Amino acid sequence: MKLFKKVAIVGTGLIGGSIALAIKRHNLAGSVVGVSRHKETLLRAKKRGVIDSGSQNLCSIENADFVVLAVPARAIKKLSLEISRIVSDDCIVIDVGSTKEEIVACFDKAFKHYVGTHPLAGSEKRGVAYAQAGLFKDSLCILTPTRRTDKEALRTVKKLWRCIGADTVEMSPSAHDKMLAFISHLPHVIAFCLMETIPSRHVRYAPASLKDATRVAASDSILWRDIILTNPDNVIRSISAFEKLLARVKSAARRNQGEILERIFKNAKYKRELLNGHRDRRAGGRR
Amino acid sequence: MKLFKKVAIVGTGLIGGSIALAIKRHNLAGSVVGVSRHKETLLRAKKRGVIDSGSQNLCSIENADFVVLAVPARAIKKLSLEISRIVSDDCIVIDVGSTKEEIVACFDKAFKHYVGTHPLAGSEKRGVAYAQAGLFKDSLCILTPTRRTDKEALRTVKKLWRCIGADTVEMSPSAHDKMLAFISHLPHVIAFCLMETIPSRHVRYAPASLKDATRVAASDSILWRDIILTNPDNVIRSISAFEKLLARVKSAARRNQGEILERIFKNAKYKRELLNGHRDRRAGGRR
Repeated sequence: MKLFKKVAIVGTGLIGGSIALAIKRHNLAGSVVGVSRHKETLLRAKKRGVIDSGSQNLCSIENADFVVLAVPARAIKKLSLEISRIVSDDCIVIDVGSTKEEIVACFDKAFKHYVGTHPLAGSEKRGVAYAQAGLFKDSLCILTPTRRTDKEALRTVKKLWRCIGADTVEMSPSAHDKMLAFISHLPHVIAFCLMETIPSRHVRYAPASLKDATRVAASDSILWRDIILTNPDNVIRSISAFEKLLARVKSAARRNQGEILERIFKNAKYKRELLNGHRDRRAGGRR
Repeated sequence: MKLFKKVAIVGTGLIGGSIALAIKRHNLAGSVVGVSRHKETLLRAKKRGVIDSGSQNLCSIENADFVVLAVPARAIKKLSLEISRIVSDDCIVIDVGSTKEEIVACFDKAFKHYVGTHPLAGSEKRGVAYAQAGLFKDSLCILTPTRRTDKEALRTVKKLWRCIGADTVEMSPSAHDKMLAFISHLPHVIAFCLMETIPSRHVRYAPASLKDATRVAASDSILWRDIILTNPDNVIRSISAFEKLLARVKSAARRNQGEILERIFKNAKYKRELLNGHRDRRAGGRR
């Protein structure tokens, strides 16, 4: 069942490329065109069958009835004005950014049929080489409609994500950013800082606890710079909450207060086991 | 090739049980006896073929020529005096604790043939049900000999770990504790604190970044309380180093300083990729 005639993917990296592959596998579009700044990316995408045609020129998205914006947050905002001049009013536009409040406010004005989405899938890997049609299978995609969102466009976008394997849930852009600061942005910031804290001479002895704790520290630094800078207040709040708890552990260690340590660790263990329960019900994506 | 006539495992949990299974698989001992406070653990260990016989009474370790102490750090210290009255002077004694300075100082006095060891293997799981003969395969075991350590006992202990699959490396108890504070104790403390920081209502949306970052938050709270309390100064130092970096990220987020964030994230990514290189060369254990 075709949902779209012509799909344009702006940014054919891991996420954009995986959406393209999934759309092609499920036969949801007449054609898929890719746009990238980098010629090599387009060649690779074409060779892997990710896109039907590629262009470094934004004009190639003309006539598309569905546009996916899959570039880092700050680049996206710069592109939006240019894109809004090219696409028709009927064209449905989504982004896949990890922060929503700033972007949705901007795109709601720029496009008639825009829906903010955030697939909780991905990995520390980047680039079209890692794109997979099955990346979103059994994952969760958060949709962030507003009062301005067209109902029909929302229905179509929801259908798309379900067709390519993701469950969908709706929340406001602001609720999304508050939550993601805790469940994704804070873990990434911590992973980066933890990795940087380890003296280089010890790295070769890293046990699995350190490896797992820092897996996402291999993530793209530009992407994560942009995520933090488009959600600073919530990220700062989540860091502060974490810092308070860490200070309590440090103080308990200093004062030999075993019962305080035990209580914090036990509560965390209980909560982590809750998470395992949820994990069993849904095999999560890699971000 | 038998290394020992009678091996006694005090604490037949994940680590003790896995050592017992590995010793039996490689036919390194005439018999393996297990000691536990809990009757059920002994029954389960016997049923799984982890031990040949089990007892709640420490006296059953009499005549052993090799004793493995595999109980949490503070319990170990209490047991040492009692055990030293039972075993002969020839008996080789090891512990497998995650901190070494305090324990080694105590055991070096209590036993004639003691060698401190710390296998960097294990997991957030506990109990004999998870014990595996192959747990130490391709892992690393740190040995912490001192001036008092008997050379022959050290050689035998090294041989044991190698027979059951672990590489060994020697360092002083103090160097061990300094390093482990960074590569293991800090990641565990962070995992516990991160998990506790996440509001419960968000737990069901946890993406893989949070899951991986908090895997070890499901670890045993008593075990980890003891580890922190037997290595407080080093743990405090590692927390402080981490806190400084986290504060820099927070301040950069507040002041919209993208270049600072980018630099920290990029350095971390570089270091994390170094770690990946090491990982490829040695498939690490789960702790």
